[in-house]
Amino acid sequence: MTGHEVGKKYVALCKEGKNEEALEALFAKDAISVEAGAPPGMGRSVEGLEAIRAKGKWWMENHTVHKAELSGPYPHDERFAVRFLYDITHKPSGKRISMDEVGLFTVENGKITREEFFYAAE
Amino acid sequence: MTGHEVGKKYVALCKEGKNEEALEALFAKDAISVEAGAPPGMGRSVEGLEAIRAKGKWWMENHTVHKAELSGPYPHDERFAVRFLYDITHKPSGKRISMDEVGLFTVENGKITREEFFYAAE
Repeated sequence: MTGHEVGKKYVALCKEGKNEEALEALFAKDAISVEAGAPPGMGRSVEGLEAIRAKGKWWMENHTVHKAELSGPYPHDERFAVRFLYDITHKPSGKRISMDEVGLFTVENGKITREEFFYAAE
Repeated sequence: MTGHEVGKKYVALCKEGKNEEALEALFAKDAISVEAGAPPGMGRSVEGLEAIRAKGKWWMENHTVHKAELSGPYPHDERFAVRFLYDITHKPSGKRISMDEVGLFTVENGKITREEFFYAAE
């Protein structure tokens, strides 16, 4: 699959809430995930499917998603960008917030090897 | 200026339609601009302020902008992303289209040295 094709599958699966499935199907085993800012008690960067899955699980357990809007994929050679606009409640604080970010994905040999999230980290 | 600060200035100037001013103030002289697809009769990549200015001029001459919506900047270390959503008419064909893309900007020593545009090139 080209980067654009991988991007289309990624967006289609995430729009259906199948993020876990997207991870299994589209990511390389040693993929790296890098945040713009470190989540509480974590590093900015994690490596490997298992660590990325754990980060996703932590995120889902700590947020209620009221609305998720994905735009893209926006391809450029073997990379693609996705814009995420989420209306969420952070469960521990009960605070409802709008999460607006861009993900940049690097594809090698048909698999995502790197995802980087762009947003203003406080 | 940090990458995030450069991004804020870039978005603020572009929102006011001051793209030329953004170029002068925020870009390095030898900045590189890369499209996802080559515009008609051009290469995908141009180098240097003068070439980037000429590309912008060509674009403005060939499109009527009805509405421009910029989101961002979305920073990540010394890079930032911007989402552009334009309602435009391509003057030569008279075709009205929606242009939806993501720009990825790399900042070095307070100046933009590289801009890359992400979109589905037909």
